[in-house]
Amino acid sequence: MANQRKTSRPKTTPSLPGRKSATAAAPVRIALLGFGTVGSAVARVLAAAKLPGVELSHIFNRNIARKRSSDAAKHVPGSVVWTENFDDVLNSRADIVVELMGGLDPAERWLRKSFAAGKSVVTANKQLIAYRGAALKRLAAKHNVQLVHGAAVAGGVPVIAGVLQGLSGDQITRVSGILNGTCNYILSRMETGASYAAVLADAQALGYAEADPSADVDGFDARAKLCILSRIAMQAELDPDTVATQTISSVEAVDFAYARELKCTIRQVSRAQLDGRLVHARVAPMLVPLESPIAWSHGTQNMVVTTGRFGGDVVFSGHGAGGEPTAVAVVSDILAVAQRSVAVELPVRRRQVTGEFLAPHYLRFVVDDKPGIVAGIAGALAKVGANIDSLLQHTGHPKHRLPFVVTTEPCLTSTIEKAVAAMAKMDCMLERPLCLQILTIDDKGE
Amino acid sequence: MANQRKTSRPKTTPSLPGRKSATAAAPVRIALLGFGTVGSAVARVLAAAKLPGVELSHIFNRNIARKRSSDAAKHVPGSVVWTENFDDVLNSRADIVVELMGGLDPAERWLRKSFAAGKSVVTANKQLIAYRGAALKRLAAKHNVQLVHGAAVAGGVPVIAGVLQGLSGDQITRVSGILNGTCNYILSRMETGASYAAVLADAQALGYAEADPSADVDGFDARAKLCILSRIAMQAELDPDTVATQTISSVEAVDFAYARELKCTIRQVSRAQLDGRLVHARVAPMLVPLESPIAWSHGTQNMVVTTGRFGGDVVFSGHGAGGEPTAVAVVSDILAVAQRSVAVELPVRRRQVTGEFLAPHYLRFVVDDKPGIVAGIAGALAKVGANIDSLLQHTGHPKHRLPFVVTTEPCLTSTIEKAVAAMAKMDCMLERPLCLQILTIDDKGE
Repeated sequence: MANQRKTSRPKTTPSLPGRKSATAAAPVRIALLGFGTVGSAVARVLAAAKLPGVELSHIFNRNIARKRSSDAAKHVPGSVVWTENFDDVLNSRADIVVELMGGLDPAERWLRKSFAAGKSVVTANKQLIAYRGAALKRLAAKHNVQLVHGAAVAGGVPVIAGVLQGLSGDQITRVSGILNGTCNYILSRMETGASYAAVLADAQALGYAEADPSADVDGFDARAKLCILSRIAMQAELDPDTVATQTISSVEAVDFAYARELKCTIRQVSRAQLDGRLVHARVAPMLVPLESPIAWSHGTQNMVVTTGRFGGDVVFSGHGAGGEPTAVAVVSDILAVAQRSVAVELPVRRRQVTGEFLAPHYLRFVVDDKPGIVAGIAGALAKVGANIDSLLQHTGHPKHRLPFVVTTEPCLTSTIEKAVAAMAKMDCMLERPLCLQILTIDDKGE
Repeated sequence: MANQRKTSRPKTTPSLPGRKSATAAAPVRIALLGFGTVGSAVARVLAAAKLPGVELSHIFNRNIARKRSSDAAKHVPGSVVWTENFDDVLNSRADIVVELMGGLDPAERWLRKSFAAGKSVVTANKQLIAYRGAALKRLAAKHNVQLVHGAAVAGGVPVIAGVLQGLSGDQITRVSGILNGTCNYILSRMETGASYAAVLADAQALGYAEADPSADVDGFDARAKLCILSRIAMQAELDPDTVATQTISSVEAVDFAYARELKCTIRQVSRAQLDGRLVHARVAPMLVPLESPIAWSHGTQNMVVTTGRFGGDVVFSGHGAGGEPTAVAVVSDILAVAQRSVAVELPVRRRQVTGEFLAPHYLRFVVDDKPGIVAGIAGALAKVGANIDSLLQHTGHPKHRLPFVVTTEPCLTSTIEKAVAAMAKMDCMLERPLCLQILTIDDKGE
């Protein structure tokens, strides 16, 4: 059939009649790779939804005996084949492989094998799609199957579907947002005065953060999602390793107090902006004006703001993580593949990345207070040509460990970093100055 | 080809190879019906986007000579056929008819003729889709063509695409939002103290409101969109005429002052909630908590909040009206049809509508102040079993024309309406009491 279509005139006929037969004929069979939080939620949502023409047929997991006897398995139909051997899935009549294992290996190998076996793939694997998505998409097309990954960005928030199907007519030049629920939980809790360490411990106890929280708090998780969004929204293919990240672990409770004085809060913001053949991109804690949509997100919520040449700003927001919201995205993708609903596609181009932004900056120092400190800081800023906008110093801190803040007028990231490197060497500095971008009115997504 | 697919086993193969030929082979030809604000913006966006495989071929409008010589026509390729005769479009080789005329007739007749001629249709016509969408969709499928209407709700906000493609795996039980930009412009301007009449006059001067603003301010425009959303999100087909509406023209500046005291603002809210075989639906000015996403929208922005059983609340927001945002939705739909991207479809059911909600209510009276008024009001409420929650009376109003407010604990719409009817007959009432639903924490979309 594919060959016939290849040479046929592009008629605008839909595949509705063909799709309808999906319910009448044999059902589309689903194999789950991974039966953890998301996998078991997918089974639960599939069972509840009773989707026409869709049937769970296989579940692959390590230690399958334990999984099979778990509470989570009670939504799994008795007809399902449980296996610890991927070849059982590969050699089965499953039509769609749902990959929920994460990581690059063996996920990538198994996806390639699935395509070769004529199976479409639905995945929530953001790292795999960020690093290998373009190549895997081409491979899937070559084998005449689909690769769909709506759950790889912002979980239950249908930003990939919305952008692909609803904004393809625009020219999107900027995406920004809150792409990591763990960081958003931590930072929105710190807003109310809690310390980073205490909130991180809570997040770990609640299952929002891993034992090793680095992928979340250091920005690698959000960076992968930002790269996927850049590809989907701006047709810009980025190498994730070239996108600058900054950890949120250096942000302290005192920064929220100073931010509030500047009518801002602090969020881990992921932003990418198309600029000719270049993309400015960065994942970092930033000061966000309180009236910006980006400041609306609390707890584990995710939010994406796209800016289009014609349509302006569009905001998507909702639950970005958790078993059931992610399962909604996965099951929606399953249904799309089962109904042969193919997403709109625009040609993607490889783009170089720069971490440079022209932005005002927030600098927080912790010093052993002595005369001449402000003069030294002002000198370091003057030397790179950065202008001071304001100086904030709250009372109540000890002089020998005094946190205070300088904000600058807009200057380039590389410029302010040069000044920070110089200031870090000043004798009075008890720790490296914290330097955060301030999102401005123009950036706030309105 | 369609017949072959009809009988083929539902394989999960995508149509990518077939789609790619769309760029290599003859382009997909687009005919615009209507060259007003949106139509000319569609031509502009198509010209700027240079979409692969898509070509504007026909423009139909009355008084075509004037249109053709207008500034808006300068983005139109010289090869386009301009016509005042729909038959020219019908008998042409145009593949997609883009209907931007609005209204039920002749739009419906012309869509039916287009389908019969093998042409797919992209439309922004909310009234047509609200009243006839289900039947037209069936007819399109019968003729093996597509009917797509992403621009019919919330203009440039991809809520239809996002819900269809990204949330089909959830079970959405509630939709609510700001679906009319004109009302939102008027009410968010009144928030700052302006009178309804003055803001309406401004909105008319700016082109946001029609000379006869009834369709907007009385809720008929939003009602059509709410019915489309109910069909898309909850698979619930509603008769628009059975959905209760309430005008925003009775809301006065003083109501915003009282609302603020209740930590609320006032918005025209469209809401529908699935309840077994029944849908609770209403379009009305309502008190909205300031912390609710629904209160975030300012100016002509639109916002939709969907609530799903598994994914929870998802928020979509952006520019709901205007030529270019609406054109983004139209061009995205054109691209989807041109690429043979067919949306996910779930079976839709006809549902009965009720205007009943259990909610706290805001009652604003304007009275000629005399002893016994509060006793009379309290008596009328007690008689229907509604409890008073608070009584608000701001100083500075004349006693002979005194506006004051009573809020009630949650009670049914029909109950409070009975009380209002009784209170309206009291001698002291200078005008009919204004009765507004108050959205509560549970309703606020978080």
